[in-house]
Amino acid sequence: MRKEVIQLGILGLGVVGSGTVEVLRRNRESIERKIGARLEIRRIAVRDVNKPRRVAVDHSLLTNNAYDVLDDPQVDIVVELIGGVHPAKEYVLRALENGKPVVSANKELLAKEGADIMMAAGRRHLDFAFEGSVGGGIPIIQPMKNALAGNRIERVMGIVNGTTNYILTKMAEDGTDFEQALKEAQAQGYAEADPGADVNGHDAQYKIAILASIAFTARVRVDDVYCEGITKITRADMEWAKQLGYAVKLVAIAQEVSAKAVQVRVHPALLPLSHPLASVRDVYNAILVRGDAVGDVMFYGRGAGSLPTGSAVVGDIIDVSRNLLFGSGGRVGCTCFDQRYVVPMEQVETSYYVRMRVQDRPNVLAQVAGVFGVHNISISSVVQRQTSPQEAEIVWITHRAPEGAVRHAIAEIQRLPVVMEVCNTLRVEA
Amino acid sequence: MRKEVIQLGILGLGVVGSGTVEVLRRNRESIERKIGARLEIRRIAVRDVNKPRRVAVDHSLLTNNAYDVLDDPQVDIVVELIGGVHPAKEYVLRALENGKPVVSANKELLAKEGADIMMAAGRRHLDFAFEGSVGGGIPIIQPMKNALAGNRIERVMGIVNGTTNYILTKMAEDGTDFEQALKEAQAQGYAEADPGADVNGHDAQYKIAILASIAFTARVRVDDVYCEGITKITRADMEWAKQLGYAVKLVAIAQEVSAKAVQVRVHPALLPLSHPLASVRDVYNAILVRGDAVGDVMFYGRGAGSLPTGSAVVGDIIDVSRNLLFGSGGRVGCTCFDQRYVVPMEQVETSYYVRMRVQDRPNVLAQVAGVFGVHNISISSVVQRQTSPQEAEIVWITHRAPEGAVRHAIAEIQRLPVVMEVCNTLRVEA
Repeated sequence: MRKEVIQLGILGLGVVGSGTVEVLRRNRESIERKIGARLEIRRIAVRDVNKPRRVAVDHSLLTNNAYDVLDDPQVDIVVELIGGVHPAKEYVLRALENGKPVVSANKELLAKEGADIMMAAGRRHLDFAFEGSVGGGIPIIQPMKNALAGNRIERVMGIVNGTTNYILTKMAEDGTDFEQALKEAQAQGYAEADPGADVNGHDAQYKIAILASIAFTARVRVDDVYCEGITKITRADMEWAKQLGYAVKLVAIAQEVSAKAVQVRVHPALLPLSHPLASVRDVYNAILVRGDAVGDVMFYGRGAGSLPTGSAVVGDIIDVSRNLLFGSGGRVGCTCFDQRYVVPMEQVETSYYVRMRVQDRPNVLAQVAGVFGVHNISISSVVQRQTSPQEAEIVWITHRAPEGAVRHAIAEIQRLPVVMEVCNTLRVEA
Repeated sequence: MRKEVIQLGILGLGVVGSGTVEVLRRNRESIERKIGARLEIRRIAVRDVNKPRRVAVDHSLLTNNAYDVLDDPQVDIVVELIGGVHPAKEYVLRALENGKPVVSANKELLAKEGADIMMAAGRRHLDFAFEGSVGGGIPIIQPMKNALAGNRIERVMGIVNGTTNYILTKMAEDGTDFEQALKEAQAQGYAEADPGADVNGHDAQYKIAILASIAFTARVRVDDVYCEGITKITRADMEWAKQLGYAVKLVAIAQEVSAKAVQVRVHPALLPLSHPLASVRDVYNAILVRGDAVGDVMFYGRGAGSLPTGSAVVGDIIDVSRNLLFGSGGRVGCTCFDQRYVVPMEQVETSYYVRMRVQDRPNVLAQVAGVFGVHNISISSVVQRQTSPQEAEIVWITHRAPEGAVRHAIAEIQRLPVVMEVCNTLRVEA
């Protein structure tokens, strides 16, 4: 007999948890009609049942024991919103062992332990849905697994971290330095007190590992994703970029190199102002997916926040509920069928922006250019600006060259007596 | 027993049909693994079996009798790609009567006869999927029906016709007039020999009727969609718009007015250059969806073409195949649960751009402004430019005002002896 009520067990009532509860409440009637059954929140596990909450919930729903949710036979779907790897992984596996499908917005868990979890879900033909793990409320996981599934995905490139995009936008538009922009982001609630995971690129690293695994139908491990944060971007880099016609963004890129090889990386990059990602401002996210049939499609919106991420989680709850009602659990399972080799960063080819302080005297440009030449790196443009009577700043934009060659060239350039400092090297993407 | 082969019957092998066949062929192995079954093209019905084709297909697959496809008990899914209302509607209903789910990219059919078709599909718990009907390869129908389904949709606003966007881009960037830009679009293959459905806005009208019906969970009939094309946009309007900081785009808008009322319309509009849709160029499409939880999300990509639309059709084939294998046909059905009133255009409130030729003498501005004032229309900005010793052009940008009031004011202004001509009136959107 068809179920008439679907009961949800929620783990975690923080930012995403309260957004999820709020969305479910607000649009309950419409959601229930779309599913064709009633939705009820059966139990919510929290660390402290007495903590004040962003949403008012009946105190009797709360428990501080996750197993009251996981082991409750009445719970039809477990919604994991506690974040982190442990004990989230143990909770998710327990839910699956108990035959319950899981909805999660946990990027770190998925990026690090996705293989185990997808396998456990697959064995039992249970759904494990994770739209909220990337891009907040922006639909991206479901479209890649469904509407775009007829494509061979050639590239995924995105701005997937709102905090760093806010900081870079502030730096670019207000001329503030990194520290100041970070403080503003913290004051606005866009950055955590400990901003490491965001500004060092790890949050983006988790997300691109997830997207790459779907895009390339092959498990991409977090450790294989090259990761560089935005902390070394200075006001000077921002000014030069603007002058040269570029925006500076933290990009996450997953690119097919051949049938067997891919590259996956997170780092700041200069993007030409005409690039679709260049105009993505503030905490917004955007993800560009290139398929062999569809060409470039872009998904844009708020990449984080309570209600946007709640929207994604509720979308998954609707999807999983439909599968429960139709007995079609595991309908869209893991698609990591292939083994693909992740090319080491040294072999990745891209263009580079190199900014250096040099002595302002004849022949310096030629000496530096000579080193680039020896390493087979050709130059697209170079601009020199005198900064003091004895000193000049030079910014080079190279043509595409392998990262390894560029690193060697930079090391050699740094040893030139006329070069005082190579201040920064940033990749330039198209 | 689980099916091992899913057999497709295709109606039509034109632009979209051949793109669909091409995508299925190219990525067959990967698609079959994602589904978990083999996919075979069983039969393709075409008007003329001897016509040369864009894709090479085995001649034995072709038939000029659609019923060879529709009535073949081996056909599992019917893919309708012939376009138009008749006989497409009869074919689709026959397929459904025969118990076959249908994938279609037919916007006109869906916009005009969607109610009958969705009802026929619903009665038999069969899928009717139509991702390809709007936005070419851009995922938009599936995301609205799934990932965003937890939201109350407040607005859908899009550039959904590539032909007109190409024409307007040419006019804006190259300073050509409408006729010239249309010729270029035809030469590029972006416009039909008979471009009426595109330039008069009907193509966009069908698409926004479909999107509005999903967004508002209420059937929006094509006849309720106000529709105005781009043929009256002149070079002068383009120049003024640029000077004032706007782009001119053909926009399709579906907006919630209240719980009971919506507005749905297609017309050219001035968009501030900072608007996310303002920078959508050439044949690209973009659709902005505003949900109460997710905020604004945007979907961007190629809105037409053989392979992009083929990508969407194949995405639907994958989705429907999964439902066949899991016995979950009709899993996501029609969601037009509500009745909503479509507000007549006279009551729609927006801002307006009004360009007029006037006699260049004192007090003219005051006279015209007086008429606006009498109709309670306040002015945001006004620019006057002398065009000859006796003549000037004035462009007004109003604040928000009901369309009815603006129409009355314009009629009255046209009767002023000092006004030679009201050249154009265009809406300004934010």
